[in-house]
Amino acid sequence: MVDNKRTIKLIISYDGTDFCGWQKQQSDRTIQGELEPCLSTMTTEDICVHSAGRTDAGVHAYGMVAHFNCTSKISCKILQRGANSMLPGSIRVLDVQEVDGTFHARYLAIGKKYQYFIFTGTVQPPFKRLTTLHITKPLNLKRMANCLDAITGEHDFSSFENSGSRDKSITTGRGATRTIYSATLIQAKEKLLILEFTGDGFLKAMVRNLVGTILEVGKEKLTEQEFIQILQAQDRTKARETAPAHGLALIEVYY
Amino acid sequence: MVDNKRTIKLIISYDGTDFCGWQKQQSDRTIQGELEPCLSTMTTEDICVHSAGRTDAGVHAYGMVAHFNCTSKISCKILQRGANSMLPGSIRVLDVQEVDGTFHARYLAIGKKYQYFIFTGTVQPPFKRLTTLHITKPLNLKRMANCLDAITGEHDFSSFENSGSRDKSITTGRGATRTIYSATLIQAKEKLLILEFTGDGFLKAMVRNLVGTILEVGKEKLTEQEFIQILQAQDRTKARETAPAHGLALIEVYY
Repeated sequence: MVDNKRTIKLIISYDGTDFCGWQKQQSDRTIQGELEPCLSTMTTEDICVHSAGRTDAGVHAYGMVAHFNCTSKISCKILQRGANSMLPGSIRVLDVQEVDGTFHARYLAIGKKYQYFIFTGTVQPPFKRLTTLHITKPLNLKRMANCLDAITGEHDFSSFENSGSRDKSITTGRGATRTIYSATLIQAKEKLLILEFTGDGFLKAMVRNLVGTILEVGKEKLTEQEFIQILQAQDRTKARETAPAHGLALIEVYY
Repeated sequence: MVDNKRTIKLIISYDGTDFCGWQKQQSDRTIQGELEPCLSTMTTEDICVHSAGRTDAGVHAYGMVAHFNCTSKISCKILQRGANSMLPGSIRVLDVQEVDGTFHARYLAIGKKYQYFIFTGTVQPPFKRLTTLHITKPLNLKRMANCLDAITGEHDFSSFENSGSRDKSITTGRGATRTIYSATLIQAKEKLLILEFTGDGFLKAMVRNLVGTILEVGKEKLTEQEFIQILQAQDRTKARETAPAHGLALIEVYY
């Protein structure tokens, strides 16, 4: 049997505000749930899209990567244009490329970059309300940066993992151990603070759980030492509240 | 009778997407309609807010100015904080100040600045969809700039005025004559084009009508000479389509 399946790679950006996350659901609107019918219509095949990972309800993406297989000979250019004309403006296909049949958006991902956006001014501008967390209390940035230093490298992040099925990435078999290549605090202009995380993989809600606890250190309700103890405890009950979804964005996936 | 009324000046920013413009309406959500009940609650008085002008449904504002009178002794700081806690996040009170009783947000305005945002890249980023018009056709920027030069100065803008009640500004009595202090084309980064208009007053939908016709010149469906003829005709039926509301924002009001 000749395998005449093509593998198509997509780069997708979305405003997660109105969606219940990436993964297809019975009743709620999701990114996958919007994307698959469009691609199925264009290819006249039953398309299943595989993403580099799932994003939770309300989380945004600037560079989500996904792939699908099809036998249709439709060009990548037509696919992109067609998808963007059918999809709501809150989801955009930024790039479409035919890739080698061995490509897999999830299994071959070697890393991801996330950014968490915090607006620290007194009044949050209307146009930032859907993409930044608003915090008016003073934050001790030095202590927050120390926490970010502490998580850099290979650690068991059980304390920051939400319950639920674990992402079957290349790190499968390593339990809750993940490697953070870099974790930095960026003071961007106009009272915008960015917590940036690059790593080989992230557990469910890991970035938001880290941010939630690091913000407690920033507010001086926890010390850096206590933060490190929480990390070392490998116990989810020790960490603080999960930071809200709307401040988080998946920036890039690495292969 | 002693006049113990205070005059309070507000600077307001809003994402106009979900509102039917500034002016209070019977059934639809408007900025004034959201603002007045909040201020009435805080002052325990029946508050009527006067703005520098009305914005149409879907138009945004970064610096709308308004005022109201009250006898309540509530502090400006409490007023601002209270309003922002009651209002939806899409409307923010940026500043509250007690001003001289002679102040009037509309009658004393001597000028306004508007910007019209156009995204010219192939794929419009999801986060720009509510604040920029998306145009993929090539635009002749030099010709558009020539049109902007042509409207600078004092002109009768009847050709670019929508029907409806005329704004009772300081220019009342001058018919449709308005002075444009500056009209410029700004090539901002990341395929963002801004048409900026500063003038002593603007007729109903004037900026959007100007932009709609100037875009026809940019697409080379009209010449600059034809644009000038439309301006000189003082006849609304000559101008082209009104540009969509979501690209427009009131930036600043001058006193």
